[in-house]
Amino acid sequence: MSLPDGFYVRRVEEKDFEQVTETLKVLTTVGAIAPESFSKLLKHWNEATVWDEDNSKRIMQYNPIVIMDKRTETIAATGNIFIERKIIHELGLCGHIEDIAVNSNYQGQGLGKLLIDQLVAIGFGYGCYKIILDCDEKNVNFYKKCGFSNAGVEMQIRK
Amino acid sequence: MSLPDGFYVRRVEEKDFEQVTETLKVLTTVGAIAPESFSKLLKHWNEATVWDEDNSKRIMQYNPIVIMDKRTETIAATGNIFIERKIIHELGLCGHIEDIAVNSNYQGQGLGKLLIDQLVAIGFGYGCYKIILDCDEKNVNFYKKCGFSNAGVEMQIRK
Ligand SMILES: CC(C)(COP(=O)(O)OP(=O)(O)OC[C@H]1O[C@@H](n2cnc3c(N)ncnc32)[C@H](O)[C@@H]1OP(=O)(O)O)[C@@H](O)C(=O)NCCC(=O)NCCS
Ligand SMILES: CC(C)(COP(=O)(O)OP(=O)(O)OC[C@H]1O[C@@H](n2cnc3c(N)ncnc32)[C@H](O)[C@@H]1OP(=O)(O)O)[C@@H](O)C(=O)NCCC(=O)NCCS
Repeated sequence: MSLPDGFYVRRVEEKDFEQVTETLKVLTTVGAIAPESFSKLLKHWNEATVWDEDNSKRIMQYNPIVIMDKRTETIAATGNIFIERKIIHELGLCGHIEDIAVNSNYQGQGLGKLLIDQLVAIGFGYGCYKIILDCDEKNVNFYKKCGFSNAGVEMQIRK
Repeated sequence: MSLPDGFYVRRVEEKDFEQVTETLKVLTTVGAIAPESFSKLLKHWNEATVWDEDNSKRIMQYNPIVIMDKRTETIAATGNIFIERKIIHELGLCGHIEDIAVNSNYQGQGLGKLLIDQLVAIGFGYGCYKIILDCDEKNVNFYKKCGFSNAGVEMQIRK
């Protein structure tokens, strides 16, 4: 599936600091983050790799992306997939899609689905045997339209 | 909560290869894994760290542990928590509990709960604002006894 005219996808960069933190506020609390701390986070995200037995590809642990509105250089949507190396499934890779947010001015235009398609393509490109995510009950049908199916129950504990 | 007499906890080591792969079979397919590949996986797991802004602690990305039966040096249970550094929640840490398995000879003795307690203590020790896991509907009440509550729906896509 390709992006509509006027949009492009790329990895998150330092200059995205203000817009990306703003965009994530549709999802949850972001809190006060210093620009220097954001830079250090991106350095970590850009350096962390996952062991690949074949040495055939460079598997990035974190894959934060944005869908950009070309005309205004606005972040329309953002999301991440991070990659876990397991023992099960012959030392298999599992992809975890995290922190999906579509800017409220851009919701309902198919960009959420395109964002998920891009993240799924990254995960399967690395060879993940499965890609999972956790969502609210109210978003289950959105993820079904993205090709996902129900797998289990998310449980949490907070301090 | 402390372990009953006769058991101890430690990080997974190379010598666990056969027993740990065997233990995980109660959970799902493990498949054919060469001992050398298992060693390389452990090297990766032992080297991968998560950026810590304070530089106050060494945060291990993967934290695979076993509960050992001292008398027979048998693996009674195994599990992992891996740590994700996010933007949301002030560059918060989220812990993901993965691949929980209690050896069928040791189920129903409280060791599953102790395993989860140990993993939760590791995650909160690093400062995670939450710890999550995905499970089958049939295990929800087990995780409730471990202090977890329902958070959402797990969705998956497979190749
Ligand atoms: C949920 C969200 C990611 C969806 O993105 P979006 O860009 O608005 O959705 P799209 O336009 O790509 O929708 C794709 C399809 O899913 C449908 N859809 C979108 N949201 C839906 C929902 N909550 N329930 C059911 N269907 C939904 C659309 O109608 C569309 O269907 P169609 O292909 O038949 O026309 C977005 O609205 C959002 O960021 N919401 C707030 C934050 C949030 O809830 N994040 C996810 C946390 S799990
Ligand atoms: C599910 C599993 C991890 C539980 O471990 P366990 O060591 O057998 O459980 P414990 O003895 O520590 O149980 C702790 C408490 O939870 C209860 N419990 C255990 N399994 C339960 C279940 N499936 N449903 C409801 N309660 C359960 C116990 O009765 C006990 O309650 P109590 O404190 O009131 O006596 C283990 O049985 C297992 O590995 N099963 C197979 C693999 C699997 O399903 N893994 C998890 C995938 S999500």
